[in-house]
Amino acid sequence: MLDYALLDALAAVVRHGSFERAARELNVTPSAISQRVKLLEERVGSVLVKRGTPCVATTSGALLCRHTERVQLLEAELAGPLPALPGASLQAWPTLRVAVNDDSVGTWFIDAIAGFCTQREMRLDLVIDDQDHTAQLIRDGSVQGAVTTQAEPVQGCRSTRLGRMRYLAVCTPVFHARHFADGVSRETLRRAPCVDFNPKDELQKRFMRKITRADIDPPKHWIPHVAGFLRACVTGLGWGMCPERMVAPHLERGELIDMLPGRHLDVDLYWQSWRLSIGWLDEFGLALRKQAAQLLD
Amino acid sequence: MLDYALLDALAAVVRHGSFERAARELNVTPSAISQRVKLLEERVGSVLVKRGTPCVATTSGALLCRHTERVQLLEAELAGPLPALPGASLQAWPTLRVAVNDDSVGTWFIDAIAGFCTQREMRLDLVIDDQDHTAQLIRDGSVQGAVTTQAEPVQGCRSTRLGRMRYLAVCTPVFHARHFADGVSRETLRRAPCVDFNPKDELQKRFMRKITRADIDPPKHWIPHVAGFLRACVTGLGWGMCPERMVAPHLERGELIDMLPGRHLDVDLYWQSWRLSIGWLDEFGLALRKQAAQLLD
Repeated sequence: MLDYALLDALAAVVRHGSFERAARELNVTPSAISQRVKLLEERVGSVLVKRGTPCVATTSGALLCRHTERVQLLEAELAGPLPALPGASLQAWPTLRVAVNDDSVGTWFIDAIAGFCTQREMRLDLVIDDQDHTAQLIRDGSVQGAVTTQAEPVQGCRSTRLGRMRYLAVCTPVFHARHFADGVSRETLRRAPCVDFNPKDELQKRFMRKITRADIDPPKHWIPHVAGFLRACVTGLGWGMCPERMVAPHLERGELIDMLPGRHLDVDLYWQSWRLSIGWLDEFGLALRKQAAQLLD
Repeated sequence: MLDYALLDALAAVVRHGSFERAARELNVTPSAISQRVKLLEERVGSVLVKRGTPCVATTSGALLCRHTERVQLLEAELAGPLPALPGASLQAWPTLRVAVNDDSVGTWFIDAIAGFCTQREMRLDLVIDDQDHTAQLIRDGSVQGAVTTQAEPVQGCRSTRLGRMRYLAVCTPVFHARHFADGVSRETLRRAPCVDFNPKDELQKRFMRKITRADIDPPKHWIPHVAGFLRACVTGLGWGMCPERMVAPHLERGELIDMLPGRHLDVDLYWQSWRLSIGWLDEFGLALRKQAAQLLD
């Protein structure tokens, strides 16, 4: 069998992005971690971690991490029938490492999974990324499951639909009077600043293309923060696409207006997770789907 | 003089993290961007960009980017007295690239700067990082200013105090009854799950050390998301340190309780920015300080 003391060290370095933090988690010195990873690299015959800030797995390193985390999950499952099994901490609080998009975490995701994690005593380790990019994280094995826009199953995973998030184009009444008094058109959209979450965020662009059938490149604020994005719209920095459920109270109070009622963007969300038949990963998926049915459209 | 068409391409690649997106911003083909960066690398005699996802500047690359952005800022300032100067887009919407900690963006920062950016027609490009790490971003030149916990000025920068954020240890009443019925002690803290923002977040650890004079390592959820972090506390996943202003309504409604009233952590925040005497960078600092005085303690 493989040497799991070495693999555990590797997985901790990649999970934490640093030898120091991995050492702290495993209660050993950083030099012990470094020796274990080096030894493993010698045995495998290739570099497994790119040293840097943060430390990142190479392709071979990622494969080994993925394998190790699966074994850890399977081990942790033994804690149910064999609670007295030594090996301790991981079993007491197994880790669910999941990739989720920012807007889901900002709206429905935590509420959907809190009960399950509390009951099962599972640690939640969220990786946040754009909804169009979370599938990549499950593909390279760095998470066990992902909330994603990709319907087609990633290899080795199963995919189920969670529901739909509706996005509205919103801005303040003052912003609207200043920039869109002549209507929402190619010309006015070109000059009005919009808010983008980050360079990966294509929602504003997609909306403009849908409305005008043109690629428009307005001045853009970049606010990679859900609450900050919403505040940027509410304070009149720019217009932006916000989840309908998030802006409902602001629309009601008249702080924001729907720029083009009826012209929304819908984003379908899917849950993809490893096809491993790990009991609680399956049960987590079930619980998530059930809650999502209530919290999403 | 240096060839600024090449430098502009380099800075765009580093800003966007990708040749494709840089090409889109500068309205040229990706291969044109790639040629410009390569030519610059040949002239300088060293690699300037580590190709990857995302593309990252090398040390020399970062120095050139920093220089280029400073020149762009100085050029943009000319737009005031010389509005008809050709060179266009950057002048119309100069970019303020600023590093801010998550909790500031989630509470006071956007409200503090929205008016200034709207009046001056400045694009905001936020880089979000932990408050103890934003100083690094200004040190390596990737941002023009930073909200940071570091009081001592970074080389080439000036530092001014913005105010204080107060953090309270909070959890739900149910969580408290389950985990802290016997008091908040070493023993109970060791078993109660807490919420950490990410591995860099030391607030929970610092609080436990303050209370117990011991290093305690409880099960930790990682929720790298301000709204998600708060929801994780409100839904009873764990206890966590939250900004007082953010949890005030939850405390009032009884959804959360202050675990140890009077035992908070205070974090002093500073604004550090380039000592360049760029008019609006100075004015931005002034506006920020003035607003922060009202929005922080």
